Amino acid sequence: MTATATAASIAGLRAAYLRGELTPDDVAGRVAAAPAPPAVWISRVPEEALRARAAELGRRDPRELPLYGIPFAVKDNIDVAGLPTTAACPAFAHTPARSAPVVDRLLAAGALLVGKTNLDQFATGLTGSRSPYGAVESVYGGGLIAGGSSSGSAVAVAAGLVAFALGTDTAGSGRVPAALNGIVGLKPTRGLLSTAGVVPACRSLDCVSIFAVDASDAAAVLAVARGPASGDPWSRAGCSPVVPPEAVRLGVARPEALDFEGDRGQAERYVEGCLTLARRTASADPVDAGPLLEAGGLLYDGPWVAERLADLEDFLRDHGADVLPLTRGIIEGGRRYSAAEAFRARHRLQELRAATARLFERIDVLALPTIPTTYTLDEIAAEPLRRNAVLGRFTQFANLLDLAVVTIPNGHTPAGRPASLSLVGPAFTEATLLALAGAPVPADPALTELAVVGHHLRGEARNGELVALGGRFVRATRTAPHYRLYSLDGLPGLVRVAEGGSAIEVEVWSVPAAAVGALLGSVPPPLSLGHVSLAGGGRVPGFLCEAYATADGQDISASGGWRAFRALEAR
Amino acid sequence: MTATATAASIAGLRAAYLRGELTPDDVAGRVAAAPAPPAVWISRVPEEALRARAAELGRRDPRELPLYGIPFAVKDNIDVAGLPTTAACPAFAHTPARSAPVVDRLLAAGALLVGKTNLDQFATGLTGSRSPYGAVESVYGGGLIAGGSSSGSAVAVAAGLVAFALGTDTAGSGRVPAALNGIVGLKPTRGLLSTAGVVPACRSLDCVSIFAVDASDAAAVLAVARGPASGDPWSRAGCSPVVPPEAVRLGVARPEALDFEGDRGQAERYVEGCLTLARRTASADPVDAGPLLEAGGLLYDGPWVAERLADLEDFLRDHGADVLPLTRGIIEGGRRYSAAEAFRARHRLQELRAATARLFERIDVLALPTIPTTYTLDEIAAEPLRRNAVLGRFTQFANLLDLAVVTIPNGHTPAGRPASLSLVGPAFTEATLLALAGAPVPADPALTELAVVGHHLRGEARNGELVALGGRFVRATRTAPHYRLYSLDGLPGLVRVAEGGSAIEVEVWSVPAAAVGALLGSVPPPLSLGHVSLAGGGRVPGFLCEAYATADGQDISASGGWRAFRALEAR
Repeated sequence: MTATATAASIAGLRAAYLRGELTPDDVAGRVAAAPAPPAVWISRVPEEALRARAAELGRRDPRELPLYGIPFAVKDNIDVAGLPTTAACPAFAHTPARSAPVVDRLLAAGALLVGKTNLDQFATGLTGSRSPYGAVESVYGGGLIAGGSSSGSAVAVAAGLVAFALGTDTAGSGRVPAALNGIVGLKPTRGLLSTAGVVPACRSLDCVSIFAVDASDAAAVLAVARGPASGDPWSRAGCSPVVPPEAVRLGVARPEALDFEGDRGQAERYVEGCLTLARRTASADPVDAGPLLEAGGLLYDGPWVAERLADLEDFLRDHGADVLPLTRGIIEGGRRYSAAEAFRARHRLQELRAATARLFERIDVLALPTIPTTYTLDEIAAEPLRRNAVLGRFTQFANLLDLAVVTIPNGHTPAGRPASLSLVGPAFTEATLLALAGAPVPADPALTELAVVGHHLRGEARNGELVALGGRFVRATRTAPHYRLYSLDGLPGLVRVAEGGSAIEVEVWSVPAAAVGALLGSVPPPLSLGHVSLAGGGRVPGFLCEAYATADGQDISASGGWRAFRALEAR
Repeated sequence: MTATATAASIAGLRAAYLRGELTPDDVAGRVAAAPAPPAVWISRVPEEALRARAAELGRRDPRELPLYGIPFAVKDNIDVAGLPTTAACPAFAHTPARSAPVVDRLLAAGALLVGKTNLDQFATGLTGSRSPYGAVESVYGGGLIAGGSSSGSAVAVAAGLVAFALGTDTAGSGRVPAALNGIVGLKPTRGLLSTAGVVPACRSLDCVSIFAVDASDAAAVLAVARGPASGDPWSRAGCSPVVPPEAVRLGVARPEALDFEGDRGQAERYVEGCLTLARRTASADPVDAGPLLEAGGLLYDGPWVAERLADLEDFLRDHGADVLPLTRGIIEGGRRYSAAEAFRARHRLQELRAATARLFERIDVLALPTIPTTYTLDEIAAEPLRRNAVLGRFTQFANLLDLAVVTIPNGHTPAGRPASLSLVGPAFTEATLLALAGAPVPADPALTELAVVGHHLRGEARNGELVALGGRFVRATRTAPHYRLYSLDGLPGLVRVAEGGSAIEVEVWSVPAAAVGALLGSVPPPLSLGHVSLAGGGRVPGFLCEAYATADGQDISASGGWRAFRALEAR
């Protein structure tokens, strides 16, 4: 379902660099020579500067830089030192002395900046057609819109001009263009990537987003780009245990509850996409996405438009004639709202957040379509406001509800239009969403494996405690042949011995590392927690018993394990 | 610094109940007969109903009900089934069929409801004089205001009419009247006590608060009252490790940076109170409370007044003449603010929240005065708006900044006016604040003791890991005489033996239970975590070593401990 890694993917480029088959200068040359589709770039790093940066990287060790020599683009509402930040409004342009912290992180990791990309002016719009630098067409051609507001960034990745790009996302600007160009869009949790140095749209909702060809590449960029920036009051940290795809409880919307504007091809792709996903997940159940869609309505048709005005009011007063009339009209629409109306909408939002939290107690990931349908530039020109609103129907709730989203390509309709799925999860679940989207499941420092040997085995007396602490069964196996198992008045105890050991039946469980203290507190001495060597090599933390206590115990090693011993006893 | 427990305290009443010296009917009789100061009550539970409830309680076991027979009052903007909720506006009154969930929790714990108390109308005001049910005077008399808006609740406790009372607190309504009546006011973290069934003032800021005679009583009520209510979207859960008083890093404001309105007596009491606190804390350092005071200004002189209007706009349109002109004028002042202004204030607040978070990285608790000065009813009548604002100067930032506060009596000025300290901490630090205010330090399930014997001892190689994980040194001691200590190629290992053991030097540390998993992961086998029996009895979790590995080790038990062994080695 995800695009295949090509030479233009991060993974492909990195492999070539590490094999010594490619140099940053090779890539700089290709990038400089690549013909760009119209209206993608607003400014480019001059070829001389690009070559100088490549030469600088050429003197570094690629193994030390996770994004060594990876070409990338930045949406032109994010500061890059020395290049103008226009927000697609020439009268607004200024040239910052410092790059946004998120850009600095990418550069410090070795990435190769190519240029700044076109966008819907002031990141206001989802079509990619609201820019004095030209309307952006999708890589699918045929007059299809690129989607916006991060139009240029999405096309730069999809056309192979760069391996990844930064966008921004307030109502769907990092997802709608991913959908319309057949790539992956990662809309992280608010604050996970710093928005310092970004032209504000709605400060309380804005996110920096990532475009990439597949989920693995997006995960590689996220790992570098995330993190707090000092002095950014919207910066947040957080984490959530990774749920591997095979353990995910998937929620899907009933397609008849979703309005696809009559686009049957898109509705069918949604159902197909959910079925494909469901083959990889633990479960898949229909859920009510109503609270999410209602929250989206608050953003589109409510007082949050005044948040755009909050930052642009002075500029519009002095430079109103320099702003696209459509964009100006939308932002000035914020004047309609009183503070009391803003608070009432915030109160309703709180109720919808609570409903969303209840939904995500039952599921881990919600799959929704990213866009209801697709439009051509001509179709957008005919109905610019209504059709823009349609494009945001399945995206605009996410930041209001504090959700994370990964969008993935989902094939094509019979009419040849791209389809896309949004994998939606609570804040800080990026790793779970990316894994379901095809990225490798990361080792989760929040979880630890634990070998259990007695009362904590499945079906035994204390197994419920493991489950209650968040434990999941991983596998049944045996210890290396270095142990003896004792019954100490019915308490099973595993002791490693210097010689004469046996292989004892154990189960390996995955438990939250934070629960290990509670487990230790719950078992009586002489039991302890140490490391258990397993048959076939390797060791995991696990239950042990202090040797002094076995003097009065019964050596039951010959039975092979606690369950077998109990079965023998029961005969 | 806190009021002494009397027969009217929860602790005193409970002791008498448990000794069998008192029955709920005795208390109901006293409560019914007690003469109340003027204007405290808006409605009372009829004596017949009070006696019936006492009789019902008389058939229960006091040991099973933590608030058995404890008389309490409820501010009349919180629903109690069968009694009118007026919010001190007769035209607004309605009689709910259900009590607020927080009241239900208290009743289920055996508390004895006495009545509903007077308040500044719609909880708008900090003086206790804005009510058609009469202005409330402080128990200190002399025409001193009771403070508001929870005027009746504070006086009911201070006058001994009840043992505790519920108030509400948006800008200081649960703290200012505590200060003016010489009692404890607990303003919990937003959402910790459900606000379902409470007449909204500013929904996003409102808290239910607790008045009691001392911190122990407030802690006893909090333990019962806290907890989520289903269907309350503002409900929140959270916890924070308890910092015992002797470990608290106290922050104090420089008195010259605080505006006491020229009240030198209050300024002196503040300094004295801080000095008294500082004798109990680990440190006390001057800090800049500027960001907190600026946030308070946003509430008083900014768009949050429109949040009051958001809920009352319809009522004011239909019943404007039924509202006190002063109160109506304040709330209708919310019309001045646009949605864009509300968002701009929210953006500034975010910056102040970030500054506050940085402050609370350096300190655990900030001590501030609760009120700058005191006023008589006549003084308030002369300048009702400005002097009301003065009263909120040191309280009104707390809910905007998501802080918890406990106010405690702080003696009297030379003029005989009561002074009060506010102990301010981040969200969910109630237990730390209450302990510093004199409540017993609760056992913290988030912490565990851990005996360390080798590299984790103070000054040894891996001690820094313990500290980095949040560990604190508790005490140095020895094991029970059942252990041997080995050096395994420089790795110290403690092994319990069935006979021939020694007492070995150990240190007991307090570490977050959530970090035990990380500790286990960081030590190599044959080390393990089990339980260590200590000299003088008792046992704590601690580091052990698997016995099989000692065959090749050096028995260093005779040295008495790892440090002594190393000292011998070094000679």
